[in-house]
Amino acid sequence: MADSTPTEAEAACFEAGIKFGSLYHQFAGTPLSLESAASLETAIEESIENQPHCAGVTVEIQREELEAELAESSADYTELTGRFLEVEIVVDYEGREVVTRMAMEDGYPLMKLESVRDTT
Amino acid sequence: MADSTPTEAEAACFEAGIKFGSLYHQFAGTPLSLESAASLETAIEESIENQPHCAGVTVEIQREELEAELAESSADYTELTGRFLEVEIVVDYEGREVVTRMAMEDGYPLMKLESVRDTT
Amino acid sequence: MADSTPTEAEAACFEAGIKFGSLYHQFAGTPLSLESAASLETAIEESIENQPHCAGVTVEIQREELEAELAESSADYTELTGRFLEVEIVVDYEGREVVTRMAMEDGYPLMKLESVRDTT
Amino acid sequence: MADSTPTEAEAACFEAGIKFGSLYHQFAGTPLSLESAASLETAIEESIENQPHCAGVTVEIQREELEAELAESSADYTELTGRFLEVEIVVDYEGREVVTRMAMEDGYPLMKLESVRDTT
Repeated sequence: MADSTPTEAEAACFEAGIKFGSLYHQFAGTPLSLESAASLETAIEESIENQPHCAGVTVEIQREELEAELAESSADYTELTGRFLEVEIVVDYEGREVVTRMAMEDGYPLMKLESVRDTT
Repeated sequence: MADSTPTEAEAACFEAGIKFGSLYHQFAGTPLSLESAASLETAIEESIENQPHCAGVTVEIQREELEAELAESSADYTELTGRFLEVEIVVDYEGREVVTRMAMEDGYPLMKLESVRDTT
Repeated sequence: MADSTPTEAEAACFEAGIKFGSLYHQFAGTPLSLESAASLETAIEESIENQPHCAGVTVEIQREELEAELAESSADYTELTGRFLEVEIVVDYEGREVVTRMAMEDGYPLMKLESVRDTT
Repeated sequence: MADSTPTEAEAACFEAGIKFGSLYHQFAGTPLSLESAASLETAIEESIENQPHCAGVTVEIQREELEAELAESSADYTELTGRFLEVEIVVDYEGREVVTRMAMEDGYPLMKLESVRDTT
């Protein structure tokens, strides 16, 4: 029977997933306008970077998507959702560096594991 | 039978309540440290100010409370909760100005309606 | 100078607003399918009914809207948002009964104060 | 230079992490009492099971912890937080089964990767 104990690299990937799920479900639904987008980006980055093993978070709220949605609407704000988000998160766990990214794919905000490297 | 149609002042108070409930339940649970407190304050203020009839939001994350909690903990961050929050929200609805405040009272984050004024 | 002390009825309306903001921003973003809609309705109702002065919460996730959205999508679930929600909340505060409702209006989830009655 | 392309097992662990982060940050802060605990457990399980590759979610809100907290409080409800949660999530991704668990450890809600197995 094969050993089922997780490797360091697998644990690093688990940690990266936690950050993504946290980021999305903490902040989805936040009232969002062109004026408030920059402060929300910064707050999301700095809050998620507090989490253990988180080496860096970059959040880019897509201004063109946001402008397009607001142009069609009678309101001057909307809610943060995956459609407006591009995110990169780098996790460093016991010498394993994991790079992950979220962006829209086929109308669905896809979270992707990009690379796993041993940096020891 | 008495008329049950809400007055402008009552509608203004309803709007103020919406902002408070939104603010608290959108952001409670956000990972929080001394380093990230300032950016979170700004993002909360600017995002809730997007909501209709919201004339001003002031958020003060209580640094002493936060320091005290982190000093007792093995982690270097915690989660945003009512214990760390002082908030003032001013709503202006059809010429009625409502001032509301949240602060701790007996260990519970109390949201209070402070004043309702006709500014027409 | 006019007195700006809130009336009981105004405080009741403030409480009703808090419940609405809480409900929406706590649960918006929850993964949602036709199978999980019923349990989410019940959990939203029972959790918000815990809040002070809350006499009753009725949540109806709009199955037709949900089916229509899922039919257009490659995924078999979506996220809870205002488009799928009809909500009624009744607050009873110091003998004032406030009835509030949320439903879509012009593509925006509108929260409305319906009636304020003195039941003393 | 080593290949940094993620393995299937690593991708499975990333997916498991996403579910955990989502679960926690979607539902932390929900108003919670002994009466509403059961419906919240069911709603959390069924909503997270909607997410891709999620083979099973078990949520147990710790009634004893909850009773103890409410006994010390003047309120008859509190907010859902890690202190009250025991969670198991099983992910099945391309024939890799990942078992993960969350429980309190040293006063902090620890999310742990328990096992990763090849079931092909």
